[in-house]
Amino acid sequence: MSKTQEPAITKVSDLETRDAKWIALKKLEFTDQTGKSRTWEVATRKTRGQAGVDAVAIGNILLHPSHPPATMVVIQYRPPLDAYTVEWPAGLIDADETVEQAAVREFKEETGYDCRVVSISPVQSADPGMSDANMQMAMVEVQLEENAPLPEQRLDDGELIERVTIPLADFYERLVEYSKQDRMIVAAKLFHFAAGFHFARTQKYI
Amino acid sequence: MSKTQEPAITKVSDLETRDAKWIALKKLEFTDQTGKSRTWEVATRKTRGQAGVDAVAIGNILLHPSHPPATMVVIQYRPPLDAYTVEWPAGLIDADETVEQAAVREFKEETGYDCRVVSISPVQSADPGMSDANMQMAMVEVQLEENAPLPEQRLDDGELIERVTIPLADFYERLVEYSKQDRMIVAAKLFHFAAGFHFARTQKYI
Repeated sequence: MSKTQEPAITKVSDLETRDAKWIALKKLEFTDQTGKSRTWEVATRKTRGQAGVDAVAIGNILLHPSHPPATMVVIQYRPPLDAYTVEWPAGLIDADETVEQAAVREFKEETGYDCRVVSISPVQSADPGMSDANMQMAMVEVQLEENAPLPEQRLDDGELIERVTIPLADFYERLVEYSKQDRMIVAAKLFHFAAGFHFARTQKYI
Repeated sequence: MSKTQEPAITKVSDLETRDAKWIALKKLEFTDQTGKSRTWEVATRKTRGQAGVDAVAIGNILLHPSHPPATMVVIQYRPPLDAYTVEWPAGLIDADETVEQAAVREFKEETGYDCRVVSISPVQSADPGMSDANMQMAMVEVQLEENAPLPEQRLDDGELIERVTIPLADFYERLVEYSKQDRMIVAAKLFHFAAGFHFARTQKYI
Protein backbone atom coordinates (compact mmCIF):
# COMPACT_ATOMS: atom_id res chain seq x y z
CA MET A 1 0.00 0.00 0.00
CA SER A 2 1.50 3.32 -0.97
CA LYS A 3 0.79 6.58 0.76
CA THR A 4 -0.81 8.89 -1.73
CA GLN A 5 -2.70 11.44 0.37
CA GLU A 6 -3.11 12.71 3.90
CA PRO A 7 -5.81 10.84 5.81
CA ALA A 8 -8.73 13.00 6.95
CA ILE A 9 -11.80 12.65 9.13
CA THR A 10 -14.91 13.18 7.01
CA LYS A 11 -17.66 12.67 9.60
CA VAL A 12 -18.02 12.28 13.37
CA SER A 13 -21.25 10.96 14.80
CA ASP A 14 -22.47 9.76 18.18
CA LEU A 15 -22.30 6.00 18.45
CA GLU A 16 -24.64 4.09 20.72
CA THR A 17 -23.27 1.06 22.56
CA ARG A 18 -25.86 -1.19 20.94
CA ASP A 19 -24.52 -0.24 17.49
CA ALA A 20 -20.78 -0.53 18.29
CA LYS A 21 -18.73 -3.54 17.24
CA TRP A 22 -15.40 -3.00 19.05
CA ILE A 23 -16.06 -0.93 22.16
CA ALA A 24 -18.89 -0.24 24.58
CA LEU A 25 -19.89 1.99 27.45
CA LYS A 26 -20.96 0.41 30.72
CA LYS A 27 -22.57 1.88 33.79
CA LEU A 28 -21.15 0.45 37.00
CA GLU A 29 -23.04 0.54 40.25
CA PHE A 30 -20.88 -0.10 43.27
CA THR A 31 -20.75 0.29 47.02
CA ASP A 32 -17.80 2.32 48.22
CA GLN A 33 -15.70 1.88 51.35
CA THR A 34 -18.34 3.52 53.52
CA GLY A 35 -21.16 1.35 52.17
CA LYS A 36 -22.60 4.15 50.04
CA SER A 37 -24.01 3.26 46.59
CA ARG A 38 -22.29 5.10 43.74
CA THR A 39 -22.03 4.89 39.95
CA TRP A 40 -19.17 5.11 37.43
CA GLU A 41 -19.11 5.26 33.64
CA VAL A 42 -16.52 3.13 31.87
CA ALA A 43 -15.40 2.45 28.31
CA THR A 44 -14.56 -1.16 27.57
CA ARG A 45 -13.41 -3.34 24.67
CA LYS A 46 -15.64 -6.11 23.35
CA THR A 47 -12.67 -8.17 22.14
CA ARG A 48 -10.85 -9.48 25.24
CA GLY A 49 -9.82 -13.15 24.86
CA GLN A 50 -8.60 -15.97 27.08
CA ALA A 51 -5.48 -14.12 28.16
CA GLY A 52 -7.75 -11.76 30.12
CA VAL A 53 -5.58 -8.94 28.84
CA ASP A 54 -6.47 -6.66 25.96
CA ALA A 55 -3.15 -5.76 24.44
CA VAL A 56 0.61 -6.15 24.40
CA ALA A 57 3.19 -3.45 23.70
CA ILE A 58 6.62 -4.51 22.57
CA GLY A 59 9.59 -2.66 23.99
CA ASN A 60 12.50 -3.72 21.81
CA ILE A 61 16.25 -3.49 21.52
CA LEU A 62 17.92 -3.82 18.11
CA LEU A 63 21.48 -5.10 18.34
CA HIS A 64 23.67 -4.57 15.29
CA PRO A 65 27.32 -5.53 14.67
CA SER A 66 28.39 -2.01 13.78
CA HIS A 67 25.58 0.37 14.80
CA PRO A 68 24.79 1.52 18.34
CA PRO A 69 21.98 -0.26 20.25
CA ALA A 70 18.63 1.11 19.16
CA THR A 71 14.89 0.69 19.48
CA MET A 72 12.27 0.58 16.73
CA VAL A 73 9.16 2.71 17.02
CA VAL A 74 6.21 2.75 14.66
CA ILE A 75 4.38 5.77 13.31
CA GLN A 76 0.84 5.43 12.03
CA TYR A 77 -2.27 7.50 11.49
CA ARG A 78 -4.63 6.99 14.41
CA PRO A 79 -8.19 8.10 13.66
CA PRO A 80 -9.09 8.67 17.36
CA LEU A 81 -6.48 11.45 17.47
CA ASP A 82 -6.68 12.47 13.80
CA ALA A 83 -2.91 12.48 14.05
CA TYR A 84 0.13 10.29 13.61
CA THR A 85 1.20 8.51 16.78
CA VAL A 86 4.68 7.39 17.75
CA GLU A 87 4.42 4.11 19.66
CA TRP A 88 6.22 0.89 20.33
CA PRO A 89 4.75 -1.90 18.21
CA ALA A 90 1.60 -3.14 19.92
CA GLY A 91 -1.62 -4.91 19.26
CA LEU A 92 -4.60 -6.70 20.69
CA ILE A 93 -4.09 -10.22 21.99
CA ASP A 94 -6.15 -12.67 19.95
CA ALA A 95 -8.67 -14.86 21.76
CA ASP A 96 -6.54 -18.01 21.56
CA GLU A 97 -3.10 -16.45 22.13
CA THR A 98 -0.76 -16.06 25.07
CA VAL A 99 0.86 -12.68 25.68
CA GLU A 100 4.22 -14.01 24.43
CA GLN A 101 2.67 -15.33 21.22
CA ALA A 102 0.90 -12.04 20.58
CA ALA A 103 4.14 -10.12 21.16
CA VAL A 104 6.11 -12.20 18.66
CA ARG A 105 3.28 -12.10 16.09
CA GLU A 106 2.61 -8.38 16.35
CA PHE A 107 6.30 -7.53 16.29
CA LYS A 108 6.75 -9.61 13.13
CA GLU A 109 3.71 -8.02 11.49
CA GLU A 110 4.61 -4.43 12.27
CA THR A 111 8.42 -4.54 11.96
CA GLY A 112 9.12 -7.66 9.86
CA TYR A 113 11.60 -8.92 12.46
CA ASP A 114 11.71 -12.14 14.44
CA CYS A 115 12.45 -11.38 18.07
CA ARG A 116 13.46 -13.07 21.31
CA VAL A 117 11.22 -12.30 24.28
CA VAL A 118 13.38 -11.23 27.23
CA SER A 119 10.68 -10.44 29.79
CA ILE A 120 6.94 -9.89 30.24
CA SER A 121 5.67 -7.20 32.59
CA PRO A 122 2.83 -7.53 35.07
CA VAL A 123 -0.63 -6.53 33.84
CA GLN A 124 -1.02 -2.75 33.74
CA SER A 125 -4.09 -0.56 33.51
CA ALA A 126 -4.08 1.64 30.38
CA ASP A 127 -6.28 4.53 31.58
CA PRO A 128 -7.84 3.56 34.91
CA GLY A 129 -10.16 6.53 35.39
CA MET A 130 -11.90 6.02 32.06
CA SER A 131 -11.64 2.43 30.90
CA ASP A 132 -10.93 -1.12 31.97
CA ALA A 133 -8.42 -1.55 29.14
CA ASN A 134 -5.30 -3.37 30.29
CA MET A 135 -2.02 -4.46 28.76
CA GLN A 136 1.34 -6.07 29.34
CA MET A 137 4.70 -4.96 28.03
CA ALA A 138 7.02 -7.50 26.44
CA MET A 139 10.72 -6.62 26.22
CA VAL A 140 12.36 -8.25 23.23
CA GLU A 141 15.74 -8.33 21.54
CA VAL A 142 16.49 -8.51 17.83
CA GLN A 143 19.94 -9.53 16.63
CA LEU A 144 20.58 -7.85 13.28
CA GLU A 145 23.21 -8.90 10.75
CA GLU A 146 25.61 -6.64 8.92
CA ASN A 147 24.10 -5.42 5.63
CA ALA A 148 20.87 -7.44 6.04
CA PRO A 149 18.02 -5.67 4.23
CA LEU A 150 15.04 -4.26 6.14
CA PRO A 151 12.51 -7.14 6.19
CA GLU A 152 9.03 -6.85 4.76
CA GLN A 153 6.20 -6.05 7.11
CA ARG A 154 3.10 -8.27 7.20
CA LEU A 155 0.41 -5.68 7.49
CA ASP A 156 -3.33 -6.05 7.22
CA ASP A 157 -5.15 -4.38 4.39
CA GLY A 158 -5.40 -0.70 5.18
CA GLU A 159 -2.47 -0.64 7.61
CA LEU A 160 0.36 1.74 6.78
CA ILE A 161 2.98 1.71 9.50
CA GLU A 162 6.28 3.54 9.21
CA ARG A 163 9.25 2.06 11.07
CA VAL A 164 11.85 4.33 12.65
CA THR A 165 15.02 3.18 14.37
CA ILE A 166 16.17 5.40 17.25
CA PRO A 167 19.55 4.91 18.94
CA LEU A 168 18.98 4.29 22.65
CA ALA A 169 21.24 7.21 23.49
CA ASP A 170 18.84 9.60 21.69
CA PHE A 171 15.59 7.90 22.76
CA TYR A 172 14.01 10.63 24.90
CA GLU A 173 15.25 13.59 22.87
CA ARG A 174 13.87 12.14 19.64
CA LEU A 175 10.42 11.65 21.19
CA VAL A 176 10.43 15.25 22.39
CA GLU A 177 11.30 16.33 18.84
CA TYR A 178 8.47 14.25 17.37
CA SER A 179 6.05 15.87 19.85
CA LYS A 180 6.85 19.28 18.37
CA GLN A 181 5.85 18.24 14.88
CA ASP A 182 2.49 19.12 13.45
CA ARG A 183 -0.18 16.43 13.67
CA MET A 184 2.09 14.09 15.62
CA ILE A 185 1.69 12.79 19.17
CA VAL A 186 3.73 10.30 21.20
CA ALA A 187 1.82 7.57 23.03
CA ALA A 188 1.93 8.00 26.81
CA LYS A 189 3.34 4.57 27.60
CA LEU A 190 6.28 4.98 25.23
CA PHE A 191 6.90 8.55 26.38
CA HIS A 192 6.81 7.56 30.05
CA PHE A 193 9.31 4.73 29.50
CA ALA A 194 11.65 7.09 27.67
CA ALA A 195 11.14 9.79 30.31
CA GLY A 196 12.03 7.32 33.06
CA PHE A 197 15.08 6.23 31.07
CA HIS A 198 16.15 9.85 30.61
CA PHE A 199 15.42 10.71 34.24
CA ALA A 200 17.65 7.89 35.47
CA ARG A 201 20.50 9.07 33.27
CA THR A 202 20.27 12.75 34.16
CA GLN A 203 18.89 12.95 37.72
CA LYS A 204 21.11 13.97 40.62
CA TYR A 205 18.94 12.58 43.41
CA ILE A 206 20.44 9.13 43.87
CA MET B 1 -13.99 9.28 55.52
CA SER B 2 -12.93 6.04 57.09
CA LYS B 3 -12.58 2.77 55.25
CA THR B 4 -15.06 0.37 56.73
CA GLN B 5 -15.62 -2.24 54.02
CA GLU B 6 -14.27 -3.48 50.71
CA PRO B 7 -15.85 -1.72 47.73
CA ALA B 8 -17.79 -4.01 45.41
CA ILE B 9 -19.51 -3.78 42.04
CA THR B 10 -23.21 -4.48 42.47
CA LYS B 11 -24.46 -4.09 38.89
CA VAL B 12 -23.05 -3.66 35.39
CA SER B 13 -25.32 -2.48 32.59
CA ASP B 14 -24.87 -1.31 29.02
CA LEU B 15 -24.77 2.46 28.81
CA GLU B 16 -25.87 4.26 25.67
CA THR B 17 -23.96 7.38 24.67
CA ARG B 18 -27.11 9.48 24.86
CA ASP B 19 -27.48 8.57 28.55
CA ALA B 20 -23.83 9.05 29.57
CA LYS B 21 -22.64 12.14 31.44
CA TRP B 22 -18.83 11.80 31.39
CA ILE B 23 -17.86 9.73 28.36
CA ALA B 24 -19.21 8.94 24.90
CA LEU B 25 -18.64 6.69 21.93
CA LYS B 26 -18.14 8.25 18.51
CA LYS B 27 -18.07 6.74 15.07
CA LEU B 28 -15.39 8.28 12.88
CA GLU B 29 -15.55 8.16 9.11
CA PHE B 30 -12.25 8.93 7.44
CA THR B 31 -10.38 8.58 4.18
CA ASP B 32 -7.12 6.71 4.54
CA GLN B 33 -3.82 7.28 2.73
CA THR B 34 -5.08 5.55 -0.40
CA GLY B 35 -8.29 7.55 -0.55
CA LYS B 36 -10.43 4.68 0.69
CA SER B 37 -13.30 5.46 3.08
CA ARG B 38 -13.03 3.66 6.43
CA THR B 39 -14.58 3.84 9.90
CA TRP B 40 -13.22 3.71 13.45
CA GLU B 41 -14.91 3.53 16.84
CA VAL B 42 -13.55 5.77 19.58
CA ALA B 43 -14.25 6.47 23.25
CA THR B 44 -14.04 10.11 24.26
CA ARG B 45 -14.47 12.31 27.33
CA LYS B 46 -17.19 14.94 27.44
CA THR B 47 -15.23 17.13 29.85
CA ARG B 48 -12.24 18.57 27.96
CA GLY B 49 -11.65 22.25 28.75
CA GLN B 50 -9.69 25.18 27.34
CA ALA B 51 -6.33 23.50 27.82
CA GLY B 52 -7.32 21.06 25.07
CA VAL B 53 -5.87 18.32 27.24
CA ASP B 54 -7.89 15.97 29.41
CA ALA B 55 -5.62 15.21 32.30
CA VAL B 56 -2.34 15.78 34.10
CA ALA B 57 -0.25 13.19 35.95
CA ILE B 58 2.21 14.40 38.54
CA GLY B 59 5.58 12.72 38.69
CA ASN B 60 7.09 13.85 41.95
CA ILE B 61 10.28 13.81 43.96
CA LEU B 62 10.16 14.19 47.74
CA LEU B 63 13.36 15.64 49.19
CA HIS B 64 13.89 15.18 52.91
CA PRO B 65 16.78 16.30 55.14
CA SER B 66 17.49 12.81 56.46
CA HIS B 67 15.60 10.33 54.28
CA PRO B 68 16.58 9.18 50.81
CA PRO B 69 14.92 10.84 47.78
CA ALA B 70 11.51 9.31 47.21
CA THR B 71 8.32 9.56 45.18
CA MET B 72 4.72 9.51 46.39
CA VAL B 73 2.20 7.25 44.69
CA VAL B 74 -1.50 7.04 45.44
CA ILE B 75 -3.61 3.93 45.79
CA GLN B 76 -7.35 4.08 45.28
CA TYR B 77 -10.26 1.86 44.33
CA ARG B 78 -11.01 2.28 40.62
CA PRO B 79 -14.44 0.99 39.66
CA PRO B 80 -13.48 0.42 35.97
CA LEU B 81 -10.99 -2.23 37.12
CA ASP B 82 -12.85 -3.29 40.30
CA ALA B 83 -9.39 -3.12 41.81
CA TYR B 84 -7.01 -0.79 43.61
CA THR B 85 -4.67 1.07 41.27
CA VAL B 86 -1.20 2.38 42.02
CA GLU B 87 -0.69 5.67 40.18
CA TRP B 88 1.06 8.96 40.41
CA PRO B 89 -1.35 11.66 41.56
CA ALA B 90 -3.40 12.76 38.55
CA GLY B 91 -6.64 14.38 37.61
CA LEU B 92 -8.71 16.03 34.95
CA ILE B 93 -7.80 19.59 33.99
CA ASP B 94 -10.70 21.93 34.81
CA ALA B 95 -12.19 24.01 32.01
CA ASP B 96 -10.53 27.27 33.15
CA GLU B 97 -7.15 25.88 34.26
CA THR B 98 -3.70 25.62 32.76
CA VAL B 99 -1.83 22.33 33.00
CA GLU B 100 0.50 23.80 35.66
CA GLN B 101 -2.42 25.01 37.77
CA ALA B 102 -4.13 21.63 37.54
CA ALA B 103 -0.91 19.87 38.55
CA VAL B 104 -0.43 22.02 41.67
CA ARG B 105 -4.13 21.76 42.63
CA GLU B 106 -4.42 18.02 42.12
CA PHE B 107 -1.14 17.34 43.90
CA LYS B 108 -2.31 19.38 46.89
CA GLU B 109 -5.69 17.64 46.95
CA GLU B 110 -4.36 14.10 46.72
CA THR B 111 -1.15 14.41 48.77
CA GLY B 112 -1.65 17.51 50.92
CA TYR B 113 1.69 18.92 49.74
CA ASP B 114 2.57 22.16 48.01
CA CYS B 115 4.95 21.48 45.15
CA ARG B 116 7.27 23.25 42.74
CA VAL B 117 6.71 22.42 39.08
CA VAL B 118 10.04 21.50 37.47
CA SER B 119 8.88 20.60 33.96
CA ILE B 120 5.81 19.88 31.85
CA SER B 121 5.91 17.18 29.18
CA PRO B 122 4.53 17.40 25.67
CA VAL B 123 0.95 16.21 25.15
CA GLN B 124 0.73 12.44 25.11
CA SER B 125 -1.98 10.08 23.91
CA ALA B 126 -3.34 7.86 26.69
CA ASP B 127 -4.57 4.87 24.65
CA PRO B 128 -4.46 5.81 20.95
CA GLY B 129 -6.13 2.72 19.48
CA MET B 130 -9.24 3.11 21.63
CA SER B 131 -9.72 6.71 22.73
CA ASP B 132 -8.75 10.29 22.07
CA ALA B 133 -7.89 10.83 25.75
CA ASN B 134 -4.68 12.80 26.17
CA MET B 135 -2.55 14.02 29.04
CA GLN B 136 0.61 15.81 30.07
CA MET B 137 3.02 14.83 32.79
CA ALA B 138 4.24 17.45 35.26
CA MET B 139 7.43 16.73 37.18
CA VAL B 140 7.41 18.40 40.58
CA GLU B 141 9.61 18.63 43.64
CA VAL B 142 8.54 18.79 47.27
CA GLN B 143 10.98 19.96 49.93
CA LEU B 144 10.07 18.29 53.22
CA GLU B 145 11.19 19.42 56.66
CA GLU B 146 12.55 17.25 59.42
CA ASN B 147 9.73 15.93 61.63
CA ALA B 148 6.97 17.79 59.76
CA PRO B 149 3.68 15.89 60.06
CA LEU B 150 2.01 14.35 57.00
CA PRO B 151 -0.31 17.12 55.74
CA GLU B 152 -4.05 16.65 55.39
CA GLN B 153 -5.42 15.74 51.99
CA ARG B 154 -8.22 17.80 50.44
CA LEU B 155 -10.35 15.08 48.97
CA ASP B 156 -13.80 15.28 47.47
CA ASP B 157 -16.66 13.51 49.14
CA GLY B 158 -16.34 9.82 48.38
CA GLU B 159 -12.60 9.94 47.59
CA LEU B 160 -10.39 7.70 49.67
CA ILE B 161 -6.81 7.87 48.48
CA GLU B 162 -3.95 6.20 50.30
CA ARG B 163 -0.51 7.83 50.02
CA VAL B 164 2.62 5.71 49.86
CA THR B 165 6.18 7.03 49.78
CA ILE B 166 8.64 4.90 47.80
CA PRO B 167 12.39 5.55 47.88
CA LEU B 168 13.58 6.19 44.31
CA ALA B 169 16.12 3.39 44.66
CA ASP B 170 13.27 0.88 45.15
CA PHE B 171 10.82 2.42 42.68
CA TYR B 172 10.52 -0.35 40.08
CA GLU B 173 10.83 -3.26 42.48
CA ARG B 174 8.04 -1.91 44.69
CA LEU B 175 5.69 -1.58 41.72
CA VAL B 176 6.41 -5.15 40.69
CA GLU B 177 5.60 -6.24 44.24
CA TYR B 178 2.31 -4.31 44.20
CA SER B 179 1.41 -6.00 40.92
CA LYS B 180 1.57 -9.39 42.63
CA GLN B 181 -0.98 -8.44 45.26
CA ASP B 182 -4.57 -9.51 44.96
CA ARG B 183 -6.96 -6.94 43.50
CA MET B 184 -4.15 -4.46 42.79
CA ILE B 185 -2.92 -3.14 39.43
CA VAL B 186 -0.29 -0.55 38.56
CA ALA B 187 -1.26 2.13 36.03
CA ALA B 188 0.61 1.73 32.73
CA LYS B 189 2.07 5.25 32.66
CA LEU B 190 3.59 4.93 36.13
CA PHE B 191 4.82 1.41 35.44
CA HIS B 192 6.43 2.45 32.14
CA PHE B 193 8.25 5.39 33.75
CA ALA B 194 9.57 3.11 36.50
CA ALA B 195 10.47 0.42 33.94
CA GLY B 196 12.42 2.97 31.89
CA PHE B 197 14.14 4.19 35.06
CA HIS B 198 15.05 0.61 36.00
CA PHE B 199 16.13 -0.23 32.46
CA ALA B 200 18.54 2.70 32.39
CA ARG B 201 20.09 1.65 35.67
CA THR B 202 20.49 -2.05 34.82
CA GLN B 203 20.93 -2.29 31.04
CA LYS B 204 24.29 -3.16 29.51
CA TYR B 205 23.61 -1.84 26.03
CA ILE B 206 24.98 1.68 26.28
